[in-house]
Amino acid sequence: PLVSHVCQFFQPASKTAQLDLSGQRWVITAGPTREAIDPVRYISNHSSGKMGYAIAQAAQLAGAEVQIISGPVSIGVPDGCKKIAVESALQMHQQALELANKADVFVACAAVADYRVSDVATQKIKKSADEMQLNLVKNPDIVADVAALPAKPFTVGFAAETQDVAHYALDKLKRKNLDMIAANNVALLGQGFNSDDNALTVFSSKNKTELPLASKKILAEQLVQLISQHYIEKK
Amino acid sequence: PLVSHVCQFFQPASKTAQLDLSGQRWVITAGPTREAIDPVRYISNHSSGKMGYAIAQAAQLAGAEVQIISGPVSIGVPDGCKKIAVESALQMHQQALELANKADVFVACAAVADYRVSDVATQKIKKSADEMQLNLVKNPDIVADVAALPAKPFTVGFAAETQDVAHYALDKLKRKNLDMIAANNVALLGQGFNSDDNALTVFSSKNKTELPLASKKILAEQLVQLISQHYIEKK
Repeated sequence: PLVSHVCQFFQPASKTAQLDLSGQRWVITAGPTREAIDPVRYISNHSSGKMGYAIAQAAQLAGAEVQIISGPVSIGVPDGCKKIAVESALQMHQQALELANKADVFVACAAVADYRVSDVATQKIKKSADEMQLNLVKNPDIVADVAALPAKPFTVGFAAETQDVAHYALDKLKRKNLDMIAANNVALLGQGFNSDDNALTVFSSKNKTELPLASKKILAEQLVQLISQHYIEKK
Repeated sequence: PLVSHVCQFFQPASKTAQLDLSGQRWVITAGPTREAIDPVRYISNHSSGKMGYAIAQAAQLAGAEVQIISGPVSIGVPDGCKKIAVESALQMHQQALELANKADVFVACAAVADYRVSDVATQKIKKSADEMQLNLVKNPDIVADVAALPAKPFTVGFAAETQDVAHYALDKLKRKNLDMIAANNVALLGQGFNSDDNALTVFSSKNKTELPLASKKILAEQLVQLISQHYIEKK
């Protein structure tokens, strides 16, 4: 089955045109989150939102009803998709749990901040001391909480790692009860964050599929097809 | 003199068209800086770069040779301006000191991170503990270091405050030996960070000038004119 999966994705990307996702509701998180330090400063993650928006577009073009829960990005919303704009991980968490309840497929593509500042200052912190400490507390795990819902949608996570990519991805898949996880090595040049290209290794509990370096548009089409296939098999 | 200054700026913005800054070199910092936490996380500031880029454009249209030292922004470089792209405050500091040495006017419009992370992780920090501490150290003060140069250009700072705006701005002007400081209250709705409009209160050691709410383009033209006037008076 591994070989057949791989071969499938060397076929033309126009294959998604034949996919029919009509009647399915897809919820996709995208972009970074911003965790306020004070009114002018924040902690964030490198993420252009391009991958998540490309997945949204591919699913929408295949007939799905698509909602994007998006952190601050500078790219436009794909035609026909609904965008719910959020800033922080807590805001994204709240929207995700609400929308995932009614979703068939949930794709967690956002680069969510793992930690937020424990005490957000309401006024700008004055620069005085030579050193400063920021106390951070863990944010809720959005994709794990979605996968723990009684009405769990088919749940796809992302793993952006800089080392031991397969190891961390498989651990995440099992620990968070995901149906699928797409891993990329963001330490490699010319792919991942802010890039127009990417390469993914997609794991389910049974399969491993390599999606080699391609534009995020092509990759998104391949990933949507792969998700759809596994989603149908699982039903 | 206060009244005359104020009146002057209720005249049409096309006044800058009559300004002649040819032969002058202006260096403008713009946008936020990003201070890496690890390869995927960073600390930053709310800043679209719009104000700094508008000042650059106004100065360039009036004939100045303009260099923009810019943090990561999603807006285009104004025609005829040279952009030097940087990420961190340390990078911006280095470029600023180098270019300010040969500049006539230096405008520090960037929202520079006051602190950077003391030990940047080379690999993505794994999310494990419920709490985490970030140790920060102070970044160099770019505008103060430029104003301390032996060949100090006419140096203009910005103060983005959420309270006691005039107090903090005047303190900054004196303490950092600036020639002029433009203060705005970023807590007010519809102006400042990421907005298309802004309002400024500009202080020199002798004058206070209110530039009321207007588009950043108009405001930039007024500010460039005001800077030019004080620069000529000082020479």
